[in-house]
Amino acid sequence: MKLLEALNWRYATKQMTGEKLDQSDVDLILEAARLAPTSAGLQPFHIISISNQELKEKISPVALNQPQIIQSSHLLVFTAWDSISDVQIDQRYDAMNALRNLSSEKTAKTVAGLKQLFASMTQEQQYHHAAKQAHIGFGMAIAAAAELGIDATPMEGFDKDGLDKVLNLKEKGLKSVVLLALGRRNSENDWLLNLKKFRITREEFVTDIQ
Amino acid sequence: MKLLEALNWRYATKQMTGEKLDQSDVDLILEAARLAPTSAGLQPFHIISISNQELKEKISPVALNQPQIIQSSHLLVFTAWDSISDVQIDQRYDAMNALRNLSSEKTAKTVAGLKQLFASMTQEQQYHHAAKQAHIGFGMAIAAAAELGIDATPMEGFDKDGLDKVLNLKEKGLKSVVLLALGRRNSENDWLLNLKKFRITREEFVTDIQ
Repeated sequence: MKLLEALNWRYATKQMTGEKLDQSDVDLILEAARLAPTSAGLQPFHIISISNQELKEKISPVALNQPQIIQSSHLLVFTAWDSISDVQIDQRYDAMNALRNLSSEKTAKTVAGLKQLFASMTQEQQYHHAAKQAHIGFGMAIAAAAELGIDATPMEGFDKDGLDKVLNLKEKGLKSVVLLALGRRNSENDWLLNLKKFRITREEFVTDIQ
Repeated sequence: MKLLEALNWRYATKQMTGEKLDQSDVDLILEAARLAPTSAGLQPFHIISISNQELKEKISPVALNQPQIIQSSHLLVFTAWDSISDVQIDQRYDAMNALRNLSSEKTAKTVAGLKQLFASMTQEQQYHHAAKQAHIGFGMAIAAAAELGIDATPMEGFDKDGLDKVLNLKEKGLKSVVLLALGRRNSENDWLLNLKKFRITREEFVTDIQ
């Protein structure tokens, strides 16, 4: 199975070469994330795709100076809505219904239920919900990069408030969630490349109830 | 690109046939989730794979009686650690170091940093962190099912506390996160099959900074 081969090939690349990727390949990775399913179809996340070197240098200090920030070709910043409002829910369902030639009556009950659900949450809980959806797209992007033979380093260790400031996310109603550095592995200098991939066993990972 | 074809083929199947899938195919889907990367390699999630019909019938009422629960071949319950303790962090790093023939000194700084990070979070924040990692694996499982031509319905709308009780998750230190029903689409009866897939445009989804 191609996906499993790709997932076994990939690893969290620690040193990259700085080589620029074809934009068309990066676009395939972004497309996989765009096609990710999200809870109730809300798609409450947004990606900032940064190939600008100056901006990556500004981001580096708020991301523990991890070398992949600068050595990557493209740095994908996954962001999520900082809250979930009635207006945003309506926008999504209006656009969905327009595409499908459905009247808003068809989804009125679902929409009312969603509004009630999110109104019962704190703003922090709304953000966590949105950030979880972003992680589905994040998984898709990692899978797509691996299938293309492109290295991708997932990074959650960074100063989120700091990055939000660098990218002016607050004024866009977004908060940073997680980073994905895309590029090419520097095979000669990457200490992690030759270490075995560690995963818990299937037995520890899954309980089968038959 | 195979993954994009698969993601365009899939949809959130609303009616399934009840057909049983080969366990070997379900195992490939579980393997994709197992290979998902997680923050700091902690793998703080666990899947309960349920093909037992009686148990699915017990779960149905806490999952809004969505028909896919009963009509699925396997119901995957993604669960996450309800908190993240020093003991759990040590267990993961001890196992990782053993596999890699590394002394614990090599990872001592990372481990200390992680313990400090999670100690600064509330238990709810620790759960959200773990649940986000589960969503990466959830994305991988959805991608794997699509590649295999197996239908998969993501479901976040269910009574989490209710499901935790049915599955005795609390005593295992776990909380339910999200469901994935695996099976075969009932093409004749599924109202969603012929509606267009709705996603926001690339323009709305991505900001490019070059």
